[in-house]
Parts: sequence; C-alpha cells; structure tokens
Amino acid sequence: MKSKIIITLLAFFCASSAFASLPPRGTLVTDTIHSKILGTDREVSIYLPGNFKSGDHFPVLYLLHGMYANHASWFKETQGKGPIDRLITSGEAVPMLIVSPNAGGYDADKEQNGYFNMPGWQYEDFFFNELIPYIEQKYNCGGSKNQRAIAGLSMGGGGATALAQHHPEMFSSSYAMSALMALPEGREIPADPNNKVGKLFRAVEQNDCVNYVKNADDATRDALRTVNWFVDCGDDDFLLDVNIDYIRAMKAAKIPVQFRVREGDHSHEYWHTALYYALPFASRSFK
Amino acid sequence: MKSKIIITLLAFFCASSAFASLPPRGTLVTDTIHSKILGTDREVSIYLPGNFKSGDHFPVLYLLHGMYANHASWFKETQGKGPIDRLITSGEAVPMLIVSPNAGGYDADKEQNGYFNMPGWQYEDFFFNELIPYIEQKYNCGGSKNQRAIAGLSMGGGGATALAQHHPEMFSSSYAMSALMALPEGREIPADPNNKVGKLFRAVEQNDCVNYVKNADDATRDALRTVNWFVDCGDDDFLLDVNIDYIRAMKAAKIPVQFRVREGDHSHEYWHTALYYALPFASRSFK
Amino acid sequence: MKSKIIITLLAFFCASSAFASLPPRGTLVTDTIHSKILGTDREVSIYLPGNFKSGDHFPVLYLLHGMYANHASWFKETQGKGPIDRLITSGEAVPMLIVSPNAGGYDADKEQNGYFNMPGWQYEDFFFNELIPYIEQKYNCGGSKNQRAIAGLSMGGGGATALAQHHPEMFSSSYAMSALMALPEGREIPADPNNKVGKLFRAVEQNDCVNYVKNADDATRDALRTVNWFVDCGDDDFLLDVNIDYIRAMKAAKIPVQFRVREGDHSHEYWHTALYYALPFASRSFK
Amino acid sequence: MKSKIIITLLAFFCASSAFASLPPRGTLVTDTIHSKILGTDREVSIYLPGNFKSGDHFPVLYLLHGMYANHASWFKETQGKGPIDRLITSGEAVPMLIVSPNAGGYDADKEQNGYFNMPGWQYEDFFFNELIPYIEQKYNCGGSKNQRAIAGLSMGGGGATALAQHHPEMFSSSYAMSALMALPEGREIPADPNNKVGKLFRAVEQNDCVNYVKNADDATRDALRTVNWFVDCGDDDFLLDVNIDYIRAMKAAKIPVQFRVREGDHSHEYWHTALYYALPFASRSFK
Repeated sequence: MKSKIIITLLAFFCASSAFASLPPRGTLVTDTIHSKILGTDREVSIYLPGNFKSGDHFPVLYLLHGMYANHASWFKETQGKGPIDRLITSGEAVPMLIVSPNAGGYDADKEQNGYFNMPGWQYEDFFFNELIPYIEQKYNCGGSKNQRAIAGLSMGGGGATALAQHHPEMFSSSYAMSALMALPEGREIPADPNNKVGKLFRAVEQNDCVNYVKNADDATRDALRTVNWFVDCGDDDFLLDVNIDYIRAMKAAKIPVQFRVREGDHSHEYWHTALYYALPFASRSFK
Repeated sequence: MKSKIIITLLAFFCASSAFASLPPRGTLVTDTIHSKILGTDREVSIYLPGNFKSGDHFPVLYLLHGMYANHASWFKETQGKGPIDRLITSGEAVPMLIVSPNAGGYDADKEQNGYFNMPGWQYEDFFFNELIPYIEQKYNCGGSKNQRAIAGLSMGGGGATALAQHHPEMFSSSYAMSALMALPEGREIPADPNNKVGKLFRAVEQNDCVNYVKNADDATRDALRTVNWFVDCGDDDFLLDVNIDYIRAMKAAKIPVQFRVREGDHSHEYWHTALYYALPFASRSFK
Repeated sequence: MKSKIIITLLAFFCASSAFASLPPRGTLVTDTIHSKILGTDREVSIYLPGNFKSGDHFPVLYLLHGMYANHASWFKETQGKGPIDRLITSGEAVPMLIVSPNAGGYDADKEQNGYFNMPGWQYEDFFFNELIPYIEQKYNCGGSKNQRAIAGLSMGGGGATALAQHHPEMFSSSYAMSALMALPEGREIPADPNNKVGKLFRAVEQNDCVNYVKNADDATRDALRTVNWFVDCGDDDFLLDVNIDYIRAMKAAKIPVQFRVREGDHSHEYWHTALYYALPFASRSFK
Repeated sequence: MKSKIIITLLAFFCASSAFASLPPRGTLVTDTIHSKILGTDREVSIYLPGNFKSGDHFPVLYLLHGMYANHASWFKETQGKGPIDRLITSGEAVPMLIVSPNAGGYDADKEQNGYFNMPGWQYEDFFFNELIPYIEQKYNCGGSKNQRAIAGLSMGGGGATALAQHHPEMFSSSYAMSALMALPEGREIPADPNNKVGKLFRAVEQNDCVNYVKNADDATRDALRTVNWFVDCGDDDFLLDVNIDYIRAMKAAKIPVQFRVREGDHSHEYWHTALYYALPFASRSFK
C-alpha cells in the first residue's frame, strides 16, 4: 500500500519533471523451500536490490528474526525495507540480497522456534546444508565467506552470533542486535521435554555464545578473529547483561569486537534503526 | 500485534526480573468529531503519552498527513509510534499529545484532500474553530501558543507552514517535512472546477508559503518571527526546489529558520526519521 | 586565531550581505579565585554565551577535566568551544555558563590532581564552599539545583558522578564521560604517602562511585533518583569495565540512568563529540 | 601534547592490562616539495595511517584548506586528526593517506591564495604535474582514479570541485564543504591587477563550478558522471546560495550528486564534523 500511494503521488506531480522517478527501490519476494532435514516447507523472505537482474551476482546478508515472529517480521513489524532501500540508494550500503528464513512462528507454544539443532528440529543443519545452498544457487548470490554476512535480533541475534561462531569460515561479519547471547540468569526452563519453549531454551544453553568464547582454544580464537563482530544492545534492554558478558569474554580472549549501547529497549524501533549501522558494517566486510 | 508480541516475550523472560516492564509506552486512540463546518464526521488519531492520566495537562503537537492518506497514516504507513515512544522515554522529547486529523483519504479523486479553505471544504475554518477547541478541551492539552506546535509531511508540511503563517499567535513552532510549500513549476491543474485534485491545487496556489513570506509586511514578519520554523527535505525529493525557494524567501525577509537537507526522497522512511528531529524541536519550543 | 581568520573571511565576503554576521558565539574568559581551603590561587575557564549581558541570569554547567590536564583543557585539547557554540546557536542546548575549574595540572607528579578531599588538598570542600558561591554570585548564574548541572571526562567523569552523589540536592543532572568511576582492577597505588598520584588513587578508592550506589540506603537512593544521570563510554576505552560495574549497580538499585557506548576510546575526539549529547541532556534537566 | 598526555595516562593505568594500547593512530608529517612551476617551495601536511609501513600501498585523499589558512590548518584549526583516527580505527573509513598541500597562507594580502591558474601562480598546473606525481611516488599511494579522492572546505571546496570537473579521470569522488562554488552575488573584486585577493577572485570567476556544469556538453556530462559528488553546506553558511545554485545545475544536467544541509555556518566545527561523512564517502568510492 505504502509504496503504491507514494508512487501515485509522484506520478501525479512528476509526470513532466526531470526527476520523474524515485531512486530504484528493492523488491520483497517470498520463496518456499522444502526441507528434508526438518521434514516440512519453510518460507523465506528475500529482499532483491532495485537494480537486480537475473544473472547479476550480489553479496548476501542472512537476517534472522526473533522469537514469536517469522520470515516476514523484519519487513512487517520492524519495517526494515525503508532503511534498506535508503542505505543502498545513497551508497552507504552496497546492493545486496537480504534473506530472512522462517525459524519459528508467532505462537512459540505450538511452533518450534530456534536456529539450533534440538530434538525434532535440526535447524542449524537445515540452515547450512539446505537453505544456504538453495538460496545462493537460485539467486546467484554469496558463494563465499567474503560475500556472505549474518545478522539478527534477539533470538536471531544469538542465532547469528552462534552460527558464525560454529562456522567462521562462512561469514565475513556478524551483527547481533539485542541478542539472546545466553539464557539470562534465573530463567526457568519448562521441564516437559516436549515443551517447545523448553527445547529452545535448552538449545540456547547448549549454544551459549559467552561460554563458547571462554572455552575456545587458540585455534578457535584465531578462526573467530577472521569474522568482523558487532554487538548492539539498548541501554534499557533486559538482555543487556548477557551482551555485556559476551563483550567481556571477547575482550578477555582478545578477539576484536565492535560494541554499541544506544538508547532503547527490546523494541522494533531499536532494530529498525540498527539497520543503519548493520548494513554499512556488512558492506564494509564484503570483499 | 507488534507490542503484544514483545510484551509476551518480555513477560516470559522478565517475570522474576528487577526490570519486569518496558518503559511506559504511549497509547493510540481514534476519536471522531462531528464538524458542522464540513458537514461531516472527521476521524482523528491521538497519541497519548504513557504516563497520561485524566486531569493531567500536556502540550500538543498537531501532526498533519500528506495526500492520499488519512489520520491513521502517520502511525500506519510511517510507523511513527516507535520513534515517538523512544524519544519520550529517553527524555529527548517531553511527554505530549500528538494529534493527526483526517484531511482527506486514500482516494484523492473521490475524497477531498487539503488543509485549506476551498469550495465545499472549509478545512482551515474547521481546524481552528472546531478541531482545536474540541481536542484541547476534551484532552486537557495545549491551550496556548506556548503549549502548541504543528508539523506535517508533504501536503501536510505545506499545511503546517501555511496554518502557522496565518496564525502565528497559535503555535510556538512549525516543522515542515518534504513540504508542498507551493505548487512545483509546470504543474498542471485539472480544469474541471469540481475535480477534487484541482480544487486542492488551486488552494495550494492561493496559500503559497513562499509568496506569503515575500509579500509579508513588517508587522507580519514580526509576527512570523515569534514562531520557531524548521524545514527538512530530502536531497532526492521532487519538492526540494520549492523548499529552497521558501528558505531563500525566509532569509531575504530575515526570519530565522532551521533548514536541513538529509539523505532521501519522498518516502515514509524519511518522515519516520524526521520525527527524531521534529519532536525534540517542538519540545524545546514549548514553554 | 581560528575565529579571527573566519571573521576576516566573512567580513570580506559579507560586507554588503543580508547575513553579515555569524550567529552569536560565546566568549571564553579565565578567572582566578583565591582558595583559603587550598591555600592557593586556582584558575577557572568560563564560557559565557554569546548573548551574555551583565545582569542576565543563566543556568550553569560545571565541566570537569581529566588527569594530566587543567582548567583550559576542555577548550584547548578537546576543542569544546565549537560544539558548544553550535548547540546553543541551533537551540539544541539552552544558553548557559560553562565552568571548568583547575583541579590539577599537566604534571601529576608535581601538581596534585583530584576533585576529592585528600591530605593537603581538600578540593571537594573548595568546590562546594568556595568555587560555586564565587562563580554563581559573580556571574549571576545557577543558584539552585534546577539551574545547575555537572559533567566531566575521565577523572572528571568520576568526579562529576561522585560530587553529585555526595550532593544530589545541588545538581539537576550529571553526565559522565569515560569516567574513572572506581580504580580499575589490578591497579597498584604508589606506597609513598606523599606521592601525589598515590594520594589521588586512594581518594578515588574512598570515593568509589560503584560502591556508593551499592551501599546506599533507601533514603540515599531516593535522593539519587532526583538527579538525571548519564554515562557515556567508548567501546575501546580501558575504563569501560568500571562504567559497566556502575551501570549494573545503578540498575540493581533501581536508580534510572542513561547509558551509551559509542565508538571510540579514551580520546579527545570522544569527549568532543560527547558534548553533542551532554549539553542537550543538561539543558533538558534545567528547569 | 594531546596524544602525549593520553598516552602517559594510559601507560599509567594499563601497564598490566590486556588492553595496554590504544588502537593504532595515524601520524602527521610535513613534507616540502620544490615546485618549478610556482618557483618556490611548498609545504604539505600528510596523514599516514597507523598501520603504515614502507612498501604498503594505500589510497589517497587530497584535502584542501580554505582562504587565510595553509597546509596545516586541517589539523590545527579544524582538529581533523581525531575524526580521521576514529573513523579508520572503527573501519568506517579505509586506511588512506590524507594530503593537504599549502595553497596560500594566513595573510591573503601578502601570500597568493588559490587552487587555480592565475597570473604568476599556476597552482592547478603545480597540483597535477608536480604535487600528485611527487606524493604518489614517494609514499606509494593513489596512482589511479579508483585510488584517489579529493575534498575541501570553502575556497578548497570550490577547488576540489573544480579540479575534479577539469580532471574527472583523476578522482573517484569529490566532497565539497561550505564550498566557494562561485563568487557570491554582489561581491566586488579589487581592481588592482596585482592585488592577490583580486587575482584569486577573478580565478574563481573563471573556474565557476556552476557555469561549468551548465555549459558542459554531453561528453563532458558523461565524464562528470564517472565521479561521485557530494556537497555539504551549513544552513547558516553565507555560501549556501552558491551551493544551491550548483545543486540545481547538477540536477538539471542529470548528474547524480549527494547533497546535505546540516546545522551550522562557516566554521571549523562544521568541517570537523563533515569528516564523519567525507571519509566514509571517499572510502566507498575507492575500488
């Protein structure tokens, strides 16, 4: 609706003008991939840059959503398309594909959420073995560490960090927003082994990003140093503490990391504005 | 939906935490006012600050939408609630009511758009004689120049500027975004006197903000100097030229005005980010 | 030199122009106060806003320098006058006096540094009993909590925080940059009781801002809640850890505090840009 | 002095720390080149990035000073080193050499100012035929359009624009701050043919950047489109009008250009903060 109105308005005003057209905006498409690993179809939202033509090759950013959300949330609730268009139009970000796969759904009691392997939900395997090959072949993007970045918010911020920790050879950069780097202290895990939130929280414990850094041996730390890391968390965010723990672990391990605490809490406006940092950061890390 | 999800998530994580709650967010309500002047009901979107209690008094900002839009557009397409909440929470803006009245609708061929008086649509009369008294009495806000501001985008940016020009005794500040300060050069006006777009465009010509400044006598210029003016327009906006004309007229008349050209064009993302400037500016002008 | 050149240039270009003059810049003066408490003269740098006239009353910000520096350092090494002028000119900060007293000198081995009471250097007593009364009477500024703010960098950031902790009834706000909130872990203190750095470090230990919050009783916490607190520290600053400790203590004590981690380390450019946040923050807290 | 103090402070605090050192800062050196064309020695300030080692190759930015200034002014009055260090340290700008040649001096009556060819002062010839070859060979930098950028303030902003207009094959980008794009209307030129300011102003008229665009034929416009252009001018700058004229000419000629009007006037603080835009812009244009 939004773009349609603006385009109508511009058409009206600009018909005879030297500046008849908006700078090229990107397009959002939704694709569906059948996962053998998950045994189900998964939807993926894909941002194609405005100058996208079949045959072109672009770098790719995997942009992960949070709990109680899905593949479309970055563009619906967080309204991410505006900042992305604006950054690419101005040159502050390079044209890239942005890929947001569905790792859950709005009802976390009924739909399994999470980017990690857990009983009956081998999402990390799906991500590396099915999603990335499918996307990068079909849309002719990414293809190597230097042309691939990862980012995410909340559960997806922890996901982006952990996936890049497990596979630093896959990503040139990782940008974590308001990230669930670990389970916050005092968090109870539902005891029922079939409870979907319980499964997710146990997986978060097993993939704790802070401990991963603390326990990393020298070779692992060297590998982690090949990724550009960024951590961005609001001063009123309930996850600030686990992000600070992560930063302290990274500094103790002498792994360079950018850290920002901006005004805000766990909110879509925080993540909306985070894109103004995340996309230029990913762009600078592409080679 | 958006806030519900976040609150669910926070409830889950924060039940036992010292920081169980988000900073207080505002509330959006829709009111309907019957206008005798317009002979119809008009809807109004109203943002009430998070700490709003009956009996409290707050300043008020009238925030005007553009063509092909309505009272809800600032909160729907432009997603303005996130920035407003964040600015008030951090103290960068003072708690205020934000009032966006319907001055048109999505179909400009069928629904008369415009903030000015035109045949069969005395909107400026409605605005000053019905809307403001109704809102400020019912919600105990504004009440004087020092507690009242106006702002708007595109048609509403020209509207905000012109209404404050006509009544500088009513507003402490005016913030114009991507404003239709005048009809851009070469714009044709539909000849049919009943055509709604034609009526709007003739009214824009009659209320041309640039000519108003150029033609202002000394007393009028003195009056205009009692308002704090701000003009904000994207470097790729098709209305940049008329905004420049306005700035040149204001400088020639020695009426102080803030002017910013930021990256962007005629887009919701531009107006979304403009709120980060507009609300602190209005706040500083309240007394 | 700087302003002289610009003014020459403008004089040349603008002689016949409608905009012959720069917006009013402030003036820097140096005053000297004889302290009976310290038994010596102390110099003070004072920024007077551009529209300052004898008889006017303005609010006042006490802006504290760091170690190995003096009263002039905020304007010399940190080049603070540019941001201050610009913020006041644009209205983003209210006109105010900015007062930077000498609490040390460039040679910390020879000149006692510090804002606290220590053997032979009762600076905190001097600050509250001599400096503030002298400045506020002579320059007709401040005079009450609502018209007074404090801020500082490094040793002066810890100083600003601690002085506002000790006297929350004196300041409406406190802005700490890269602050020495406490002695960083593992810091050795020179054993010689006459060593000036040793005396300073012991005073920092005794005035530890983190412990002050942890140990505050309910009445003290209530008093601390009457001040608006802001903490700003670079992600590469060696003092980030003690600032995080302070933030955690404040959150545990449920005392509201703004927290920002921006890009940078312990450097003049960090503090130069911090003024863009600090002055609007102080301005909003004045009443 | 500045860096020495900070380093002393850090040495003191950080001796035993895991973060004993600041991120690598750049170094400023002054070189002198003998110009046969000008018949005199000219000094050049050169910023070498912190990780500069003999044999390394870096891109180069030519950064031009204004009237009543010299090669050192970008680092002295404008205090440019802080922003440059910070941007390179954070990765927002790529490591580059920054070269500021002396095109005048503080006394414009006695020392010829200007980047253009004028009687007795063939500075443009010197710039292209002597300075660039000397710098790029000696310091192993630049060497091609893709590795070379130009920027400047006031007289140097007009200089940067005009030199890139004359030689679009030489620069990947041009960033003009508060630029003397043309002589402002009503400006009188001293009649004495030997008056140095008169010679400069006549050269500015002859190298008028606005007329250059207006008069450009199709081939020239195509060539101009190979440069990334940026224009940045304060809303209170007395040169805003000639910058607007330039933007209008560029838009009419359909040559893409970034345009920003930020808060401020013709001041060092404006140029200091402009570096935060200029260096990332130049970095993105290097290939």
